[in-house]
Amino acid sequence: MPTAEINVFNPVRIHFGNGIINMAGEIAKKYSGVALVVTGGESMQKTGALERLLKILKDSGIKTFVYDGITPNPTCDEIDEAAKMAREKGAGLVIGLGGGSPMDSAKATAVAAKGNVPVWEYLKNPAKDALPVITVASTSGSGSEVNRYSVMTNPKTCEKPGFGYECMYPKEAIIDPEITATMPPFVTASTGFDVFVHSLEASAGKAANVFSKAYSLQAFHLLKNNLEKAYNEPENLEARGKMALASAFAGLAINISGVGIIHGLEHPVSGNYPKVAHGAGLAALAAPSLKYNFETCKRNYMLIAKHMGVKRMDKPDDEYALAFIEKIGDMLKAVNLGLRLKDLGIEREKLPKIAKEAFTTMKFAMENNPVTVSEADALKILEASY
Amino acid sequence: MPTAEINVFNPVRIHFGNGIINMAGEIAKKYSGVALVVTGGESMQKTGALERLLKILKDSGIKTFVYDGITPNPTCDEIDEAAKMAREKGAGLVIGLGGGSPMDSAKATAVAAKGNVPVWEYLKNPAKDALPVITVASTSGSGSEVNRYSVMTNPKTCEKPGFGYECMYPKEAIIDPEITATMPPFVTASTGFDVFVHSLEASAGKAANVFSKAYSLQAFHLLKNNLEKAYNEPENLEARGKMALASAFAGLAINISGVGIIHGLEHPVSGNYPKVAHGAGLAALAAPSLKYNFETCKRNYMLIAKHMGVKRMDKPDDEYALAFIEKIGDMLKAVNLGLRLKDLGIEREKLPKIAKEAFTTMKFAMENNPVTVSEADALKILEASY
Repeated sequence: MPTAEINVFNPVRIHFGNGIINMAGEIAKKYSGVALVVTGGESMQKTGALERLLKILKDSGIKTFVYDGITPNPTCDEIDEAAKMAREKGAGLVIGLGGGSPMDSAKATAVAAKGNVPVWEYLKNPAKDALPVITVASTSGSGSEVNRYSVMTNPKTCEKPGFGYECMYPKEAIIDPEITATMPPFVTASTGFDVFVHSLEASAGKAANVFSKAYSLQAFHLLKNNLEKAYNEPENLEARGKMALASAFAGLAINISGVGIIHGLEHPVSGNYPKVAHGAGLAALAAPSLKYNFETCKRNYMLIAKHMGVKRMDKPDDEYALAFIEKIGDMLKAVNLGLRLKDLGIEREKLPKIAKEAFTTMKFAMENNPVTVSEADALKILEASY
Repeated sequence: MPTAEINVFNPVRIHFGNGIINMAGEIAKKYSGVALVVTGGESMQKTGALERLLKILKDSGIKTFVYDGITPNPTCDEIDEAAKMAREKGAGLVIGLGGGSPMDSAKATAVAAKGNVPVWEYLKNPAKDALPVITVASTSGSGSEVNRYSVMTNPKTCEKPGFGYECMYPKEAIIDPEITATMPPFVTASTGFDVFVHSLEASAGKAANVFSKAYSLQAFHLLKNNLEKAYNEPENLEARGKMALASAFAGLAINISGVGIIHGLEHPVSGNYPKVAHGAGLAALAAPSLKYNFETCKRNYMLIAKHMGVKRMDKPDDEYALAFIEKIGDMLKAVNLGLRLKDLGIEREKLPKIAKEAFTTMKFAMENNPVTVSEADALKILEASY
């Protein structure tokens, strides 16, 4: 592998620690005196995180406006609205507060605020410039806090593509376990499983390299035991901290090497069913996808199994690699994510449409999968996940 | 550990691959049409690397000047000369071609070229601005290609401090195994051992965190077997590539968490004896330093031993950790670095001066050591290394 060309770059300043959110004002001041905070309509209000952030910003003399219309699967319309607000209020900085959705949306807003076209246009025409972005992560999952990616859904077509140009890197990422400690159990579980799938797909995909592998292995180490612990002991700041760091490492890994079929298939699932949590969709798709990639990824599964503490005993290779898939199933059950697509309300007759869409909006993920996958294969995986 | 505050940042664009030096012109063009290449007086000429780089730059329309006065332990006078040349020729870019010395010097030159004071002044007065720097690594050791550090010697006082401000990060690092393949065996060995010590000290020091540990572990993986292989098979591009990447990972690790007593003691050794290669000094100091830190670092040694493939068998903890120190001794002997300070021409009566200087110019390294160390302790380690 080291003889293949590698190009890596990540200019995000990462700040991690209990109470580090108190630095948000000092950090934001470097960029602008007027900030637009992009967030959802519920949890950041309920937990008090939004109020806390606004006070910190105000105390540093920053004028703030809030766009709180981001939904769990953010639409391009919401982003266009937020961008309009940024322009109208003269914001020189966009702060994404929340989980993957508001952080992703903050980056897309920062791009759209600089231009005069709907944000969807930037899927075709690369953006060269964006307002500076700061991410304040409230979940440990998307990795969006430390990378350039943004995912949005077109409500007219149900397409849910990802995009990410260099100008979209957050300038700074604020990762505070205290903020993530307010996540309810289902969110802890579903976003935490996203961390696992990011690490898996970034370390196994065709584009994987020594950098994405180093990040992924550290993510597996941090995730091991701590997903369950954070789920069962929501206020355990050590477990929360390790999950928050695991999310960052996995986010750095996918920034380099992208994702594979589990993400490739999940995006059209939650694109068509916007109420489905991304992590729940991933959970339903995991085992059949892992099995589909089995022969090629066997050695990788064994390595991850070792790092995640799956005992080898005297198991031969195949058996040990299969034990890893079982372990993942057990981990999902332990956090109440032992789900199938039908449990998520997906209609069986939609599966062919989903399989098809995976190859359009998530083409790069499908192509990055370690094993070549056809539309017929994709449909079989979806059927097996149903 | 994850509850301690972490702040990480590294904006260097890393390009790795056989023949990737051919991209140097395209990369340099982004920054300036006039470049000063900073290099030594011998090896880059002999191997043809300098000529190759100059042709590539010329073919991209870049006007180049060469400062080739950098010695193995670069002095502040050399850097002031190079900076004067950069100013006089109107260079908008500094390219460091070679091992740690020219790459370090390129960064220091880039700082000094912007100001009007001798570079030594920047040890006291932080630099805010520097010319852009590109590193082209010809050795796999210093890690300088990917971090902000620069080391220079004051020929009047024999002090050899390191410094590194944010403006000193290289914009881009070009890491081409073809270029490193021309290293003679002694250089392969001594720079390669620097990679090991960087990884060790960055992962064990007081400032170590999950980021420096992730980088260090990947460096250990890449280094394992490949130091000897690159030493014995100089043209083995796979081994060269892995060592080059190991150097980069270790360089990223020290950028976050710094070094410890092995470096802290070595700098005054080669500061007082400028003909001593840094890696040879490190080799002489390694075992006594590892033993000094033994009780505190035992678990870390065991972890690294595992990653470097030292068989545990039924050994109890202490024995396994000691087997690691032996393994490092064996690795050094295998590349003809089984040296003591007296073999390097160090005079015994200089040891107290060296011990003293470690606490001035390398204070941060001595303080970062996992075990608190006094001047008397330092002298004992030097005696044991003699």
